[in-house]
Amino acid sequence: MKKSALQIARAAYRPQLPNVLDGPVKVKEGEPTVSAGDQEEIKKLFPNTYGLPEIVFEKAGTAAQSKPLNVGVILSGGQAPGGHNVISGLFDGIKAINKNSRLYGFLMGPGGLVDHNYKELTADIIDEYRNTGGFDIIGSGRTKLETKEQFDKGLEILRELEISALVIIGGDDSNTNAAILAEYYKAIGAGVQVIGVPKTIDGDLKNNVIETSFGFDTATKVYSEVIGNIQRDCNSAKKYWHFIKLMGRSASHIALECALQCQPNICIISEEVEAKDLTLDQVVDDIAQAVVARADQGLNYGVVLIPEGLIEFIPAVKRLIAELNDLLAAKAEEFAAVEPEAQRAWIISNLSKENAATYESLPAGVARQLSLDRDPHGNVQVSLIETEKLLSEMVGKRLATLAQEGKYKGKYAAMHHFFGYEGRCADPSNFDANYCYGLGYTAAMLIAAGVTGYMSSLRNLTFAPVNWVAGGIPITMMMNMERRHGHMKPVIRKALVELDGAPFLKFVKERENWKIGTCYTYPGPIQYFGPAEVCDQPSLTLVYEQKRRKY
Amino acid sequence: MKKSALQIARAAYRPQLPNVLDGPVKVKEGEPTVSAGDQEEIKKLFPNTYGLPEIVFEKAGTAAQSKPLNVGVILSGGQAPGGHNVISGLFDGIKAINKNSRLYGFLMGPGGLVDHNYKELTADIIDEYRNTGGFDIIGSGRTKLETKEQFDKGLEILRELEISALVIIGGDDSNTNAAILAEYYKAIGAGVQVIGVPKTIDGDLKNNVIETSFGFDTATKVYSEVIGNIQRDCNSAKKYWHFIKLMGRSASHIALECALQCQPNICIISEEVEAKDLTLDQVVDDIAQAVVARADQGLNYGVVLIPEGLIEFIPAVKRLIAELNDLLAAKAEEFAAVEPEAQRAWIISNLSKENAATYESLPAGVARQLSLDRDPHGNVQVSLIETEKLLSEMVGKRLATLAQEGKYKGKYAAMHHFFGYEGRCADPSNFDANYCYGLGYTAAMLIAAGVTGYMSSLRNLTFAPVNWVAGGIPITMMMNMERRHGHMKPVIRKALVELDGAPFLKFVKERENWKIGTCYTYPGPIQYFGPAEVCDQPSLTLVYEQKRRKY
Repeated sequence: MKKSALQIARAAYRPQLPNVLDGPVKVKEGEPTVSAGDQEEIKKLFPNTYGLPEIVFEKAGTAAQSKPLNVGVILSGGQAPGGHNVISGLFDGIKAINKNSRLYGFLMGPGGLVDHNYKELTADIIDEYRNTGGFDIIGSGRTKLETKEQFDKGLEILRELEISALVIIGGDDSNTNAAILAEYYKAIGAGVQVIGVPKTIDGDLKNNVIETSFGFDTATKVYSEVIGNIQRDCNSAKKYWHFIKLMGRSASHIALECALQCQPNICIISEEVEAKDLTLDQVVDDIAQAVVARADQGLNYGVVLIPEGLIEFIPAVKRLIAELNDLLAAKAEEFAAVEPEAQRAWIISNLSKENAATYESLPAGVARQLSLDRDPHGNVQVSLIETEKLLSEMVGKRLATLAQEGKYKGKYAAMHHFFGYEGRCADPSNFDANYCYGLGYTAAMLIAAGVTGYMSSLRNLTFAPVNWVAGGIPITMMMNMERRHGHMKPVIRKALVELDGAPFLKFVKERENWKIGTCYTYPGPIQYFGPAEVCDQPSLTLVYEQKRRKY
Repeated sequence: MKKSALQIARAAYRPQLPNVLDGPVKVKEGEPTVSAGDQEEIKKLFPNTYGLPEIVFEKAGTAAQSKPLNVGVILSGGQAPGGHNVISGLFDGIKAINKNSRLYGFLMGPGGLVDHNYKELTADIIDEYRNTGGFDIIGSGRTKLETKEQFDKGLEILRELEISALVIIGGDDSNTNAAILAEYYKAIGAGVQVIGVPKTIDGDLKNNVIETSFGFDTATKVYSEVIGNIQRDCNSAKKYWHFIKLMGRSASHIALECALQCQPNICIISEEVEAKDLTLDQVVDDIAQAVVARADQGLNYGVVLIPEGLIEFIPAVKRLIAELNDLLAAKAEEFAAVEPEAQRAWIISNLSKENAATYESLPAGVARQLSLDRDPHGNVQVSLIETEKLLSEMVGKRLATLAQEGKYKGKYAAMHHFFGYEGRCADPSNFDANYCYGLGYTAAMLIAAGVTGYMSSLRNLTFAPVNWVAGGIPITMMMNMERRHGHMKPVIRKALVELDGAPFLKFVKERENWKIGTCYTYPGPIQYFGPAEVCDQPSLTLVYEQKRRKY
């Protein structure tokens, strides 16, 4: 690998550990915990790992004599900046415990455990990846660890390598599966601990004990950099409306954070659209009204941020998609026989009145996508819909109508962008570099403490890393029962944007100013070497959330 | 404007001036120059500004007593990082000459001169924009200064404001027009000098006396940052081919520079495609062969860089577009009467055999775009074609055929990206911050020297800024006659990628390794505060070009 100048310089960065981890630690146990919901059912499903206490590490006077630890590590799901630092923190942690400890990486995600694909991660390999983005040290994958067969197959290789603990770095689903695996290995007396690490750029794995997931900070900073650049272009050329879609299908945290950073004219928050039961036409109307209001002041340009998952949050569209899925499954043969040009009419005549109206309101291209592009299960592929183009096109039509009515005299031209892959593998910001390294190091301490079914945890994140509180949270504490694929399952509750939360309220307070005024802020690229106020700031979401929590 | 932490910290950056400009200067004239081509015709068109000598500034012992200068400045065309620094360098330069000098910015491009829209740029305004991206200090626009009426209208406001020199910051066309304006004002004795500054992220305004245009360095660094991030994602997930289109319609310098920085699997260079007279099918075949070769080694992923202008460089497509433009103009009414579903057949039957074959080879969506989406002049809108999707779709079809023939057993899934607006208004890199400030300062010195029709010039750019050579180049020296819209016109010759140039040869030497090996480099974001090897490197294109030039 030919390294860039930045990579070489950045390799020397020493992540800051919490003070407490700088030397031997002892465990301080809190009170027994309960799950976030459905306590009885969760307790029944996790008899061996339910009700465990929260753990906080404290400084110990002298180091206990510790045996070497053989540990396995897995990267699960989509990439997030800082994954390599979790692994290097874990490596340094188990080496600090005993220099003969060994770390094995399972390759290309959880599938590597099941299929026995692994490699030992030695110091020279680890050193190549410190403070770098990507998951390429061992690769990642989306295989779900769910079945007893997988667990048993995995145990074979864990035993062969004498691995006594497995660290799973993943999102809410992967950590749910880590908890199930921990329970299973505990139940059968396998002698393998399982520790989870909270990862996802989407920011939807957090709760009152996990302040944020890693990667969110860096990814939103990369998106904010390019959004800021586009805003500056927009404000220089003064002739385009830029519609910018941002990754994140389940929650709008990314869009909200970027809005707080960049102050665009408009940012749509899916959770608000759902709560207000807005139709697609109403969302379009709101944007069109803003375009008109700006045009009235001679400002024929602007920036709109759109969360990737918007379309699935619009209740009317959600109902349409549900009925379409049922309809096209029930009458698949009949539909297949319909001539292409007659398909639209066929669908409208077969839908309920309300859903037919929603379908008719969609641009032809999108409507066609909904009925033709289907995944292997026969379901509509919502992720293929280019929401940014859908909205700008519908806004354009609405403006044409308003112009005919004499209510709009501006010019309207749109540009489209989608940012996702640009940020998932960026070199971690100082925040994520420190946070991830600390999470990995803490995972090592949890392993040494002999616990299982815990998630590595660092808290007090808006303070300097030396003051962070390190410990572990029983994963079952975050769980409740939810319907998934028709069955009730124990899962970690996904954190959506809270409409009474401090970040959203801050946005609501400012957004009318941003809409008409041009209040763009230009965050610029992530800096690694400059003054602290430039290099070390955590996300605004975290800052506002934690500020509120203190009072 | 709410400033970001980076903006505040970066405002304090002091661009490095060439040593020679650090104090009073005197002019050293070189030999009289001749134009790049068509000397007789250019000489006839520019009787007052042809054959001027190159100018180099040297240190002068004592400052001459100088009168205050009133100067106007215009930003012309697309945004490029560093425009604000040209203006702040110009401001500081004329203030250094006499502190009562004044700077006026004409608003929203050359149109501001014609329409008399301007504002005085005072120190407090200038200080808000130092080292920032964007052209928002006065805005930019695409009005072309071409007619005597415009020149005369402009002169009214220049006289009213007692402006004796106009600085036009623009690309090749804007500088061509600057030369014409300089000639006109000289011819009529208007008493207004005109100085050009070489701007364009495309990098196609350079020659043997102008080493690079400003903005290219920063824009390609931003694109390389996100391309690197995508490559790291690609190499972590190992399941997608990413097709990345990069801005730049006339030349492939941006794609080539990003390829040198990032080492993707494939980078298409339009100039090579044209020189080899490749068809679209051949371009597609080349990519498909690389996909197959990687799949044979189990690598079902990769990255392809595509210059925005590719489609217009493919000779067969160019011929098709030319005939389509003629055909649809000549038979507009007949075509308008053809039913939509019969249009394709109508077009094929009306085209020559060769062009019909090219048309048939295009995916239906693209073919439709070529025949339906037309600009106000009735021409095909090539820029609307999503070349990245066109290529990935055609590659997919080719692979399906190869799979049927048993020649391909891989998996193929593609992702698409287009980067342009993300980089045009980024905060300038140290290189561009210094280069632009120096260009602006040099423009002030050219004004003080009383010359007109010159382009501000800094040379020796791969050395430290203190060693840069400052001076002026007669714009006519870069001109030749070319056919534009059916007429022969004097223009600055556009610099395309030279297939015997050092940057391209370096790429050719490496590209076979990059294709099959995975040699991705991850440049990361532009750094402003770190070690010099991270913060102060010029583009590789410039480095390779200048290295060759020295020997």
